[in-house]
Amino acid sequence: MASQPSQPSRFSIGVDYGTNSVRAVVVDLADGSLIGESVYPYPTGDAGIIVDPRDPNLARQNPADYIQGFLTSVKRAVAAAKKASDSFSPDNVVGIGIDSTGSTPIPVDADGTALALHEEFRDDPAAHAWLWKDHTSTAEAEEITRLATEAPEQYLRKCGGIYSSEWYWAKILHCTRTAPRVAQAAASWVELVDFIPGYITGRVRPEDVPRSICAAGHKALYHEEWGGLPSADFLQKLHADLPRLRYSQRPQAANCAVGRLLPSIAKSVGLPSGIAVAGGAFDCHMGAIGCGVKPGVLVKAIGTSTCDIMVSPLDAPIADVPGVCGIVPESVLPGMYGIEAGQSGVGDIFNWFVRNLAPPQFATRNAHELLTQEAARLTPGASGLLALDWNNGNRCVLVDQELSGLLVGQTIHTTAPEIYRALIEATAFGALTIINRLEEYQVSVREVVCCGGIAEKSDLLLQIYADVCNRPIKVSRNPQTCALGAAICGAVAGGAYRTVPAAQKRMTGVKDKVYRPRKEAARTYAELFELYKKLHDSFGNTSQTLPLHDVMKRLIAIRKRTRAE
Amino acid sequence: MASQPSQPSRFSIGVDYGTNSVRAVVVDLADGSLIGESVYPYPTGDAGIIVDPRDPNLARQNPADYIQGFLTSVKRAVAAAKKASDSFSPDNVVGIGIDSTGSTPIPVDADGTALALHEEFRDDPAAHAWLWKDHTSTAEAEEITRLATEAPEQYLRKCGGIYSSEWYWAKILHCTRTAPRVAQAAASWVELVDFIPGYITGRVRPEDVPRSICAAGHKALYHEEWGGLPSADFLQKLHADLPRLRYSQRPQAANCAVGRLLPSIAKSVGLPSGIAVAGGAFDCHMGAIGCGVKPGVLVKAIGTSTCDIMVSPLDAPIADVPGVCGIVPESVLPGMYGIEAGQSGVGDIFNWFVRNLAPPQFATRNAHELLTQEAARLTPGASGLLALDWNNGNRCVLVDQELSGLLVGQTIHTTAPEIYRALIEATAFGALTIINRLEEYQVSVREVVCCGGIAEKSDLLLQIYADVCNRPIKVSRNPQTCALGAAICGAVAGGAYRTVPAAQKRMTGVKDKVYRPRKEAARTYAELFELYKKLHDSFGNTSQTLPLHDVMKRLIAIRKRTRAE
Repeated sequence: MASQPSQPSRFSIGVDYGTNSVRAVVVDLADGSLIGESVYPYPTGDAGIIVDPRDPNLARQNPADYIQGFLTSVKRAVAAAKKASDSFSPDNVVGIGIDSTGSTPIPVDADGTALALHEEFRDDPAAHAWLWKDHTSTAEAEEITRLATEAPEQYLRKCGGIYSSEWYWAKILHCTRTAPRVAQAAASWVELVDFIPGYITGRVRPEDVPRSICAAGHKALYHEEWGGLPSADFLQKLHADLPRLRYSQRPQAANCAVGRLLPSIAKSVGLPSGIAVAGGAFDCHMGAIGCGVKPGVLVKAIGTSTCDIMVSPLDAPIADVPGVCGIVPESVLPGMYGIEAGQSGVGDIFNWFVRNLAPPQFATRNAHELLTQEAARLTPGASGLLALDWNNGNRCVLVDQELSGLLVGQTIHTTAPEIYRALIEATAFGALTIINRLEEYQVSVREVVCCGGIAEKSDLLLQIYADVCNRPIKVSRNPQTCALGAAICGAVAGGAYRTVPAAQKRMTGVKDKVYRPRKEAARTYAELFELYKKLHDSFGNTSQTLPLHDVMKRLIAIRKRTRAE
Repeated sequence: MASQPSQPSRFSIGVDYGTNSVRAVVVDLADGSLIGESVYPYPTGDAGIIVDPRDPNLARQNPADYIQGFLTSVKRAVAAAKKASDSFSPDNVVGIGIDSTGSTPIPVDADGTALALHEEFRDDPAAHAWLWKDHTSTAEAEEITRLATEAPEQYLRKCGGIYSSEWYWAKILHCTRTAPRVAQAAASWVELVDFIPGYITGRVRPEDVPRSICAAGHKALYHEEWGGLPSADFLQKLHADLPRLRYSQRPQAANCAVGRLLPSIAKSVGLPSGIAVAGGAFDCHMGAIGCGVKPGVLVKAIGTSTCDIMVSPLDAPIADVPGVCGIVPESVLPGMYGIEAGQSGVGDIFNWFVRNLAPPQFATRNAHELLTQEAARLTPGASGLLALDWNNGNRCVLVDQELSGLLVGQTIHTTAPEIYRALIEATAFGALTIINRLEEYQVSVREVVCCGGIAEKSDLLLQIYADVCNRPIKVSRNPQTCALGAAICGAVAGGAYRTVPAAQKRMTGVKDKVYRPRKEAARTYAELFELYKKLHDSFGNTSQTLPLHDVMKRLIAIRKRTRAE
């Protein structure tokens, strides 16, 4: 008997620009499974980052790495897919989607070429991409916050009330002030997340390059309510050279096609030309799509820092939530507000501890694993420690880079695993602070789906998050959720699915293991969170002055009780 | 020509009971030089301390170790002196003095035998010596503070206003409550500092054992103003079993002889019998004598914890200083108030850091040295860190064991040497807090003389103390100042000198190197001390509620400024 001819498999490609490398994946449209994958570490600088020993705030990247990264990673992922699956054929790739870190703006000339690619600017860090975690623009961010707060439009009410030094206009303003030659030469500033879709579809000129609503809405103060970008008048007040940088394109959502793969690029990566290319979106927004984000579900991408994404239907308008990074219509899913929040330091803090303070018995290649093992033996509250998770500043809900870490409760018996656990707990308290803020503003968080490297690796962290947040924590079944989300957008842009939710239904899901809050732990953590909140508000909130003399005593009382239990 | 017959050299012996061992020294009365020395580590428990894994507050010692420690260390020191110097002869030893940690009370029976030496109580920690750093009696200390504050006599006004869990009556009360069998069996509680002089002179019975004014005045609420020990009425309110423990001896100063060495003991240590034995005093009081304490000079014995001693003439009465451990007439020198203060954790905190948080490159046998080398390269303020020195609680001026450590200002770039330095600075700020409190009450501190292990070893610490305290810091020329002070008292008790100051003039002195405050460092530390004081008062003082949102920002501003300088 002859076998039934089956529908040929179809595929899409997601390309995920991270902090140190770019990753391309080929996924099967039937179930989101990963058929081919390749990672390209950026060759320039220190692990891909141009740094300045005199200024720890500076973090730039070479746009050439982005371009080469696309070509190499996609070519290799396609080759890997071919090798891995007989059912794969480049002809059955229906679309490509892109995500990246951000705000990572790149100064470009009138032809859309990144200034850093000109010989003249090759060695000038200001002419390169300003990586999301570049914190040189603190003063400018404060200035923008001040001006925007005074402006009748109240430009900051959609992004938490405070402008960040990590964002678009702060970086441009800082460049204008400190590197005027670069600023003069820049015809426009293009987010990495738009630069690549533009580059591979031939839409590179500043007036033509696609502009993502995700980047524009969350980082560049774009909102329909005030007619798009901030007014020329407003920008003029910041600097006379800024008004000309207002672009006129209307930003688009990531599920729309922005063009088709150029033949030259297609050839060099081993794909047919003409494949649909979706608009870009920031990594965490794509990650949320890849995690199956929907109303009531908070998606947390947990890595060196954390990005939190929620969606909420447009037909039930929500209030402006102070201290979250943005509430932008359709920045994640069509018909929904995209709500972004985040924590400045999570994995970064654990890595700092391991690199600088892990004693010899833990300071091995698997330091995190060993410390986690020991930390997992401890009962909540038994260390008597409490930390603030601000070693990298605070992104939400205080939006203040000029904050720092704090540890309290140490005795002369405090151990490294106890501190390591306290740092994990601190990030969990930071997570709960965001959830509480969202709920205060009627965005209810019924469950949390995590993704990212740490969510993949640390049972302990996920259990602590479940206990602290007192909510079930699930983990995306796909480890590369950002790239998967990009691939889903590629699939929708290519017409394989009519909508993102339809694609999500087939292509995303969570692992079987769910971390559920444990009653006793949740009770202790609720007490510790009260103290965390006291420290949080005392050190972080200019309008709060609280009595703190009970903090150490209550930590000791909790320690005594939980050790006796 | 026949050589002139010269006056034969004379000697005295000092015996210093430390936390982990007892040290005996033989010194030359002419100049205080050390002729023979021997250290006997207590064999019982963990480095001499009986601990309880379930209760980190418990710290007891075996009285048998004290007795054996006297016999062994004195015998060996005498043998060492014989070997080292032809001019030494046991017959020329004029006196013996004793110092010890305290308050370290020992329950004894009606014959003066320590209960722990009875088979019945051999394994009961409550029947052993309650080492100074036993912190099991926090609740009882609070209760005593409360009752004493209500009492018309205002019993606490001579010892800082707050009774400590480290002190005599708190420990006895805790034993009465938690180990009634031991409490019933105890005919009296004898401080280690009295137990040994009594033991070696045969004055062992509770009604006959010498009672040191240093221990009685600083730890047992003894003061002539209210007729000696607290009234039976007062003790009755604490517990019905306490009034019978009031002893009737009048406490004596350490420069007086309390008896003569028993023949049996003399024989076993290789000395003639009948040598004068001075009354005991706590280690830091003897250390102060050994450092040449006099009005205007603060003596700091810097070890695992710190003890601060000053003297002030009795004919210029001084106010009660809240938060210092005691102001007791003649507890250090005749004709002077003895003023005692101290810091609960100094070397203990540095040791904790090294043992638990030193990364591999520093975690070697000379960890302190390596960390100190790196820490010495840092400019004051450049780490952006600030710590509270409360890992062991706070002895002065808050007198509160239920406080804990705090570190603020850490980023993801903070290094181990930066934290190590911040911990040293924290102890310096703690030292300055005590100095400021003394000066607020008109006890002026013109210079500081340090002694103890850390003062011997750490140039960096002494320079930081000079910069933070903005005063010259000197170091005793004799490394064993406690034992030397005890030997000086032995010399006076034996009649070799008429007064302690006369003996000090010959037998004590400071090293040539003086640590002087550096202007720029002192300026930065003055700024950091303001922030330290804010944290100190916020976390430690129940009557203070201060705004703290400037703390992290000011630390960052100081960091930026001092890094740029």
